[in-house]
Amino acid sequence: MTRFVITGGSDAGISAALRARELDQGCEVTLIVADRFPNFSICGIPYFLSGEVAQADDLAHRRAADIEAHGIRLLLEYRATRIDADSRQVEVQRPDGDRERLPYDKLLLGTGAVSIQPKLPGADLPGVFPLRWMGDTLTLAAFLEERRPRDALIIGGGYIGMEMAEALIHRGLKVTVVEAMPSVMTTLDPDLGGLVAAELSRHGVEVLTDTRIETIEPEGDGLAVHGSGGLRQRAELVLTVIGARPETRLGAAAGIKTGIKGAFKVTRRMETNLPDVYAAGDCAETWHRVTGSQSYLPLGTTAHKQGRIAGENAVGGAREFQGSVGTQSVRLFDLVAARTGLHDADARAARLAPLSVDSEHWDHKVYYPGAKRMLIRVTGEADTGRLLGAQIIGAYGTEVSKRVDIFAAALHQGMHVEDLNDLDLSYTPPLSSPWDPVQMAAQAWMQRWQQLQGKAA
Amino acid sequence: MTRFVITGGSDAGISAALRARELDQGCEVTLIVADRFPNFSICGIPYFLSGEVAQADDLAHRRAADIEAHGIRLLLEYRATRIDADSRQVEVQRPDGDRERLPYDKLLLGTGAVSIQPKLPGADLPGVFPLRWMGDTLTLAAFLEERRPRDALIIGGGYIGMEMAEALIHRGLKVTVVEAMPSVMTTLDPDLGGLVAAELSRHGVEVLTDTRIETIEPEGDGLAVHGSGGLRQRAELVLTVIGARPETRLGAAAGIKTGIKGAFKVTRRMETNLPDVYAAGDCAETWHRVTGSQSYLPLGTTAHKQGRIAGENAVGGAREFQGSVGTQSVRLFDLVAARTGLHDADARAARLAPLSVDSEHWDHKVYYPGAKRMLIRVTGEADTGRLLGAQIIGAYGTEVSKRVDIFAAALHQGMHVEDLNDLDLSYTPPLSSPWDPVQMAAQAWMQRWQQLQGKAA
Repeated sequence: MTRFVITGGSDAGISAALRARELDQGCEVTLIVADRFPNFSICGIPYFLSGEVAQADDLAHRRAADIEAHGIRLLLEYRATRIDADSRQVEVQRPDGDRERLPYDKLLLGTGAVSIQPKLPGADLPGVFPLRWMGDTLTLAAFLEERRPRDALIIGGGYIGMEMAEALIHRGLKVTVVEAMPSVMTTLDPDLGGLVAAELSRHGVEVLTDTRIETIEPEGDGLAVHGSGGLRQRAELVLTVIGARPETRLGAAAGIKTGIKGAFKVTRRMETNLPDVYAAGDCAETWHRVTGSQSYLPLGTTAHKQGRIAGENAVGGAREFQGSVGTQSVRLFDLVAARTGLHDADARAARLAPLSVDSEHWDHKVYYPGAKRMLIRVTGEADTGRLLGAQIIGAYGTEVSKRVDIFAAALHQGMHVEDLNDLDLSYTPPLSSPWDPVQMAAQAWMQRWQQLQGKAA
Repeated sequence: MTRFVITGGSDAGISAALRARELDQGCEVTLIVADRFPNFSICGIPYFLSGEVAQADDLAHRRAADIEAHGIRLLLEYRATRIDADSRQVEVQRPDGDRERLPYDKLLLGTGAVSIQPKLPGADLPGVFPLRWMGDTLTLAAFLEERRPRDALIIGGGYIGMEMAEALIHRGLKVTVVEAMPSVMTTLDPDLGGLVAAELSRHGVEVLTDTRIETIEPEGDGLAVHGSGGLRQRAELVLTVIGARPETRLGAAAGIKTGIKGAFKVTRRMETNLPDVYAAGDCAETWHRVTGSQSYLPLGTTAHKQGRIAGENAVGGAREFQGSVGTQSVRLFDLVAARTGLHDADARAARLAPLSVDSEHWDHKVYYPGAKRMLIRVTGEADTGRLLGAQIIGAYGTEVSKRVDIFAAALHQGMHVEDLNDLDLSYTPPLSSPWDPVQMAAQAWMQRWQQLQGKAA
């Protein structure tokens, strides 16, 4: 009987636990969860804070009882304090403060990531909040409820920052987003990030790019935020959402090696350098299928996959993580922005020669009512024609996100841009065209590529 | 300079013409079009007849002038009457009735399909209409406008029949659909066809299955339709949409071999048995990628692909059609039904052992407002775990059609059901789950498959 101990009750940990129990009913799975919120959808936090999700508990992918019904032992509000790899034990601190040691045959670290705190004067003032876990969420929710701030300044224009901007607009606040980089949503190319920023502006969000926050000071019953370019803005609420770094203290203290951005080094079987110790999710490196090398891409989708593989291997499997291709999507107001693969900058960083071609297409036949334009940017390898990535910006409700998944499936298989035209994609006039926009975008790329090859020849 | 002559101005012909001109600006392309409607979207006909598309001309994918701007010579209202393969000439009848001969170096037959006419007394009465081409459409539109029929009976519960039922409901008619098979939409499994029928019933369409029409007779200023099971129904309009058969008379007379369902036999390069004569689209066989054999699947998407390949090969290419995987989608009222690959009956016909597993999923995280259930049926090969097909029934607006395309892309690559879990698909709570419904359906299939294997072992 395998004793499988997992530290961390979020996506990777739960997926591993469920998979291990699914494959081996004899496996004894113990899940150590630092808070009271196992298996919560942290991607859903903005929708709770906006008021669209009524109860924080609704954000649970599964309830504790559902997890336990799978034969998984849940240790809530337990903190793993030390790993003893020689004796194969994890020391935990119980809710009552006492410590005990849990023996393991297999151990998974799914300790996730923590918010990066901006190093600036005033970042620890009341009214300044980080946002990553459920604890942060409940603290902020209480502040919103009790203090009823009229305005908010969000430091960081990534996914969470942008989603929180919409959430706070939804609650009636005046919202400013401040991003240090030249564009928000740096997972998209800068000009596409600009389209996303424009959608937020259209809905009343003030978006400041190329702006660094320098200090936060108390001012009356609010805060005064100072930044580069003469920024001086009063806000009753400041959110700091500038990114996350892997939480690796427990594992590193036990000798687990870390690599990119400080994440645990793992094999594609999710093994660390310690025998029988796996790591998965936001605390671990992510093998990137397009570059063929490790990266750090902390995402729930990846955490679920890596956790599932770790769980399978913990009970005797030999499965390899097939890699991320960097797929992400976001809905902001009426817009969906989705991306997959490598873009120009990523490709150059991977020493590849990218060619990106934009084209615009109707989401369905224009004669059928309600057709909307979407912008598709296809990135391919200039010397081989291999597909490297795609970005799509379009209206909510036009199947943008699952269209990017067609590119993601093609990337998974190493297809060339031209090969997209061979896919037998669905068509009916209210939903597509005989060549889907994905294929018309591939054709636009091919035409440009052939023109360039013609010139070079 | 290649003289490339194409008979047929619909999807296959136009795609071939455009591709040939794109790759070889020196190519002389002549397109013989029997009517005045080159490159019309015949899939859009129901939306014109419903009144949602204001002008029949709006159904054109491209206008004649756009086609000519590509350097393509358009011969509208010309009929190809004979192919002389020895002298490489096509005889055509001009609009003025005179004949001339067009020499060719390469010839493509894109003659499409024609409606199958039911062999029953009264099928030729006034008020009984077939529906496939623009000519049929304008005739029916004039009838609808002038005669203002109050009720319609549609013979045939396939895609066109069901879409026309919705179209005529939209115009305020009372509508009955009569299908000879036990279910409508026989491209779906019968019970799923039943769900589609239920959606139509919910919107006021009377759907009769297992019912054969026997006679149509004049009655007053309308028609009396008699059928099996004692059916006797009065209707002022009868539509016959029971399917299509390839239009091959021109080619067959010249010695081109026909195969499945009478369609032209073609290689994967779209070559017929006559030298330098290609065929593509609804007049030709379709290589099925999942079975690895020829089939007859007349669809616009396939016609576009086959035409593009024929066009490429006509100017010196050597490209092969990569096959259909049988992807189709339809929107009917608030429902989308999409399918790809093989289902149980198809698989058994191909001497494969299928296992189909149903599961239901929310289209996005249920905590985010507006989540709707979709039913996904995954079909895999029971002995190998290979993906064979999928069917999805869900609400309009829940990315059903592009989700079936993820299955289609996986089928294209010969993936196994379990491999779907490796795909890096996009997730954001308003649009999906960390495991997309496609993947949760794959997991449901795997669980069932493993249970069965456990029992068998």
